[in-house]
Amino acid sequence: MPHIDSWIPVAPGSDFTIYNLPYGAFAHKGGVRLGIAIGDRILDLYALGDAGLTEGVCDRALLMATSLNPLLAAGPAIWKKLRLHLAALLRGDDRGDASLRERNADGFFVEQRAATMVVPMEIGDYVDFYSSLEHATNLGKLFRPNSEPLLPNWRHMPIAYHGRTSTVVIDGTPILRPNGQRTPANSDGPVFGPSQRLDIELEVGFVTGPGNRFGEPIPIGRAREHIFGLVLVNDWSARDIQAWEYQPLGPFLGKSFATTISPWIVTLDALEPFRTNGPGQDPAPLQYLRGSDRSAYDIALAVDLSTEKMREAGVAPITISRTNFKELYWSMLQQLAHVTVNGTQIRPGDLYASGTISGSQPESMGSLIELTENATKPIHVPGGEVRGFLQDGDEITLRGWCEQGEFRIGFGTARGRITPAR
Amino acid sequence: MPHIDSWIPVAPGSDFTIYNLPYGAFAHKGGVRLGIAIGDRILDLYALGDAGLTEGVCDRALLMATSLNPLLAAGPAIWKKLRLHLAALLRGDDRGDASLRERNADGFFVEQRAATMVVPMEIGDYVDFYSSLEHATNLGKLFRPNSEPLLPNWRHMPIAYHGRTSTVVIDGTPILRPNGQRTPANSDGPVFGPSQRLDIELEVGFVTGPGNRFGEPIPIGRAREHIFGLVLVNDWSARDIQAWEYQPLGPFLGKSFATTISPWIVTLDALEPFRTNGPGQDPAPLQYLRGSDRSAYDIALAVDLSTEKMREAGVAPITISRTNFKELYWSMLQQLAHVTVNGTQIRPGDLYASGTISGSQPESMGSLIELTENATKPIHVPGGEVRGFLQDGDEITLRGWCEQGEFRIGFGTARGRITPAR
Repeated sequence: MPHIDSWIPVAPGSDFTIYNLPYGAFAHKGGVRLGIAIGDRILDLYALGDAGLTEGVCDRALLMATSLNPLLAAGPAIWKKLRLHLAALLRGDDRGDASLRERNADGFFVEQRAATMVVPMEIGDYVDFYSSLEHATNLGKLFRPNSEPLLPNWRHMPIAYHGRTSTVVIDGTPILRPNGQRTPANSDGPVFGPSQRLDIELEVGFVTGPGNRFGEPIPIGRAREHIFGLVLVNDWSARDIQAWEYQPLGPFLGKSFATTISPWIVTLDALEPFRTNGPGQDPAPLQYLRGSDRSAYDIALAVDLSTEKMREAGVAPITISRTNFKELYWSMLQQLAHVTVNGTQIRPGDLYASGTISGSQPESMGSLIELTENATKPIHVPGGEVRGFLQDGDEITLRGWCEQGEFRIGFGTARGRITPAR
Repeated sequence: MPHIDSWIPVAPGSDFTIYNLPYGAFAHKGGVRLGIAIGDRILDLYALGDAGLTEGVCDRALLMATSLNPLLAAGPAIWKKLRLHLAALLRGDDRGDASLRERNADGFFVEQRAATMVVPMEIGDYVDFYSSLEHATNLGKLFRPNSEPLLPNWRHMPIAYHGRTSTVVIDGTPILRPNGQRTPANSDGPVFGPSQRLDIELEVGFVTGPGNRFGEPIPIGRAREHIFGLVLVNDWSARDIQAWEYQPLGPFLGKSFATTISPWIVTLDALEPFRTNGPGQDPAPLQYLRGSDRSAYDIALAVDLSTEKMREAGVAPITISRTNFKELYWSMLQQLAHVTVNGTQIRPGDLYASGTISGSQPESMGSLIELTENATKPIHVPGGEVRGFLQDGDEITLRGWCEQGEFRIGFGTARGRITPAR
């Protein structure tokens, strides 16, 4: 791939090269504006549209909106056209469009470090899958020790449940340790209090573009047209609350207190060079779930931990897990075909998370309950502390990126620090 | 209670007496307007606000909005003030406010039979509880025949899961029989096709008013202030899809294809005369769930069935179940205290459904799977047909009402007719 630079400086190793151009939203004078990340800056799409610099590309109302939903509804043809235009405005060689560069560019850019990012879409429905074979097997062993870990339905469909949309929060939002019912080992019945088994789940979620008509399933061959892009997702989980409440209707308060997403939606168009094959599936799925070859994405993922003591001592975060999104058993196309096969309506801005992404190696697990084998093999952190589950003051950072030589795009971070229970 | 009439005619047995004044929304020239049901008419709240007939009562923007959400956010003091004002405008004696009656009233009213009702609120999150002891016990026996029907957590918390908001539909919307995976008794693995066990669930749901701050639970003593009113809910369920998919994360596609609500939100203020005690609870719940005496509501409920053949023969629908909302084990106040105890945020317009309401008698079950004991004891309908689960063309109507002598308020209907699978 030929190397292209932007005239906006992009530091080596930046997630936000000109190949990326992910979409987000930031607070602006009491309102919200949409933007594109480039290097350390945000290109203000409101300003761009307002200045007439997208004329002939798309209705500028899409860019001057306070959420991405209108642009999500516009569909892939508009997305591609806009992407090409933005790349032309930002490329540094003489093959671009100089109209932005020739203006006083200062009015069009905001420093990322000075911006307060917000969740960029109105989320109609949030669905959380369970699509990692390794994670489903590991959790089955821990939650149902006396039976077969993988339930009989798992290899036939991408299992999922609906999560809470009101508590999907942006990178950096403090995570309040939840109170709830749990059943300590030496207790007669449930007790109430702060969760003692606060955990993370490393996930990647997709954000939908145009919806379907109510009653009309999206065939797997058309599913890609309904996916705009991806974000990192931390599905914070209170394992003790979850274990006591989850039968028979699934997770509820053990998950609903917070779900953190990264601020930038990396588009499928940007991820296209990293599209690859997922793992084989055995048995072959039913017909409506077939035809998703080369629908995995090679996205490296990492989980970093820092404790309060580490930060006080000036010690850098440690990486406690590394895995890859391409390991998932069920693809996003299969997930979307499955969700809509009963006629369910999806809408622009829905969030569909992958479920915890765990690899086959001990250091590639996407949750603490797996990494520490339910706190029986705690993680040793610098300074002599150990961690089974999260303590107050701990900060977790999810990272994700794609690389081929010098060509790199990334997701930024999905961070959250634990604050004490009320 | 003294008898009050409206100057708008109200037929004997009407659900929409002056004591009710429930809120809904109807299509109007390509847009949506809010309204109040009275007799066979709708009082157009947009027209009322536009004419200045609510000055000094509330910001007329609340009434001229296209969804109830702004009014829901306004809170109980505004709701009560508006209710008193609307009652004064509509009462027929000389103790009312003649300002509406003196105008050309025709411009302020729409005939209900000419109106297309729509879901009146934007639903941020939809939660479905499982709060009937009889239903949970009956379903446990059917879904887990080899173990204790009631799971150990059930008597300690109101069990619930998140449902799909995009497919909450209004009274009268056709219900498409869903396709999905099921495992017939004589089959090796799952097969794909139309559900063969399409069922109903008779429920009542509450719609929230003002939200809480993220992280701050709603104590049970304040829960009532966050509840605006109630609707009938039919949580359509494909039992064969549900049985195969629901472990370990709960119901998903077996429920997400459609949920029907009645068009009128009956307010807690209107229901106040029917507030009563629910059943006793044993064991006593944990502290955060205590203090909900007299928080049940005496609402008679009925399920009517008509088949295509019955309609062709001019035969009236038959009532297949009668029960009462007051039978629920867990109260709405307990449900809301539980949902938010981990800091979860609720927002105006959320929908919290009760779960299937089943009484202790065979004819008081709120689902066909219970009424027919999983189709082993089918219902005999006029004309010689039998029904285990629903056939194409069947129409189900939920009804709900409260009565004390001549004093009556009701919910209207939540109807749906089954159309064949795609």
